[in-house]
Amino acid sequence: MGAVKIIRILGIDPGSRATGYGVIEKNGPLLGFVTCGTIRTREKDFSRRLFEIHQGLREVINCHRPEVAAVEDVFVATNPRSAMKLGQARGVAVVAAMQSDLEVFDYTPRMVKQAVAGYGQADKAQVQRMVQVLLELSGMPSSDAADALAVAICHANHMDYIRKNC
Amino acid sequence: MGAVKIIRILGIDPGSRATGYGVIEKNGPLLGFVTCGTIRTREKDFSRRLFEIHQGLREVINCHRPEVAAVEDVFVATNPRSAMKLGQARGVAVVAAMQSDLEVFDYTPRMVKQAVAGYGQADKAQVQRMVQVLLELSGMPSSDAADALAVAICHANHMDYIRKNC
Repeated sequence: MGAVKIIRILGIDPGSRATGYGVIEKNGPLLGFVTCGTIRTREKDFSRRLFEIHQGLREVINCHRPEVAAVEDVFVATNPRSAMKLGQARGVAVVAAMQSDLEVFDYTPRMVKQAVAGYGQADKAQVQRMVQVLLELSGMPSSDAADALAVAICHANHMDYIRKNC
Repeated sequence: MGAVKIIRILGIDPGSRATGYGVIEKNGPLLGFVTCGTIRTREKDFSRRLFEIHQGLREVINCHRPEVAAVEDVFVATNPRSAMKLGQARGVAVVAAMQSDLEVFDYTPRMVKQAVAGYGQADKAQVQRMVQVLLELSGMPSSDAADALAVAICHANHMDYIRKNC
């Protein structure tokens, strides 16, 4: 009987003010919690905020050694200026992962909500609660961290029949 | 009499399909051309395109050793989806510069056009022509490379009385 490969997945919920991250382990059908948190940018200068996100994610990757990254693909911004800010944070997150040789997968918010809560219109509190249940967490993760863990769970569910950029 | 410090400026015009770059030298009031070009992304996968931009800019920086970067701050995208794509390319460009310890300055398209052509509504052909004249280039740079050189010239003009994120 061949051993099941355990894989570490980094989920990222990018944002210019707060970027959530979460690392889980997939061991066959089982999911295990590794870490989660939020990179809150402190700098006033926007370029420096982007660099804070980059450095924060590189640190998480160096500490916890995930093998793949799943990044939320966000189109919810209602105006181009907000989308530009969010886009910059997302670009930085993608490159932080790729610089560490992680393969990067994109998931829409709808796919993420579907994966953890069973339907694509789930609200933030439902996502938080379901992440807590699925990963058997004793406490409730913060909203950004829960979103990031949810993206990682979404990837874990899609892994077996995934095509890149689904 | 103190020697005037020569400074190398990298200008970047970010885009997910084509990112223009240009390096100039400022020697007191004199500007000199160093290099310019366009990083054209080839990959189909968007994350990989972002990584191509990052790698391409890191290579330019390593080869030509600029000390500061000036990045066009673009809000012209008409819809959030385009803005998200452009934003991601821009975020990657900013971080590529910051990872090489370059200080990053932002300029709006209006400021850039004002700096090279004397008015903020100049069209692309006018920018190309003025960049050619100002840097005494024998040939006409491509549109993306000219835009990047124009951002660098804009920074050179603002350097003496600059405040970060003007």
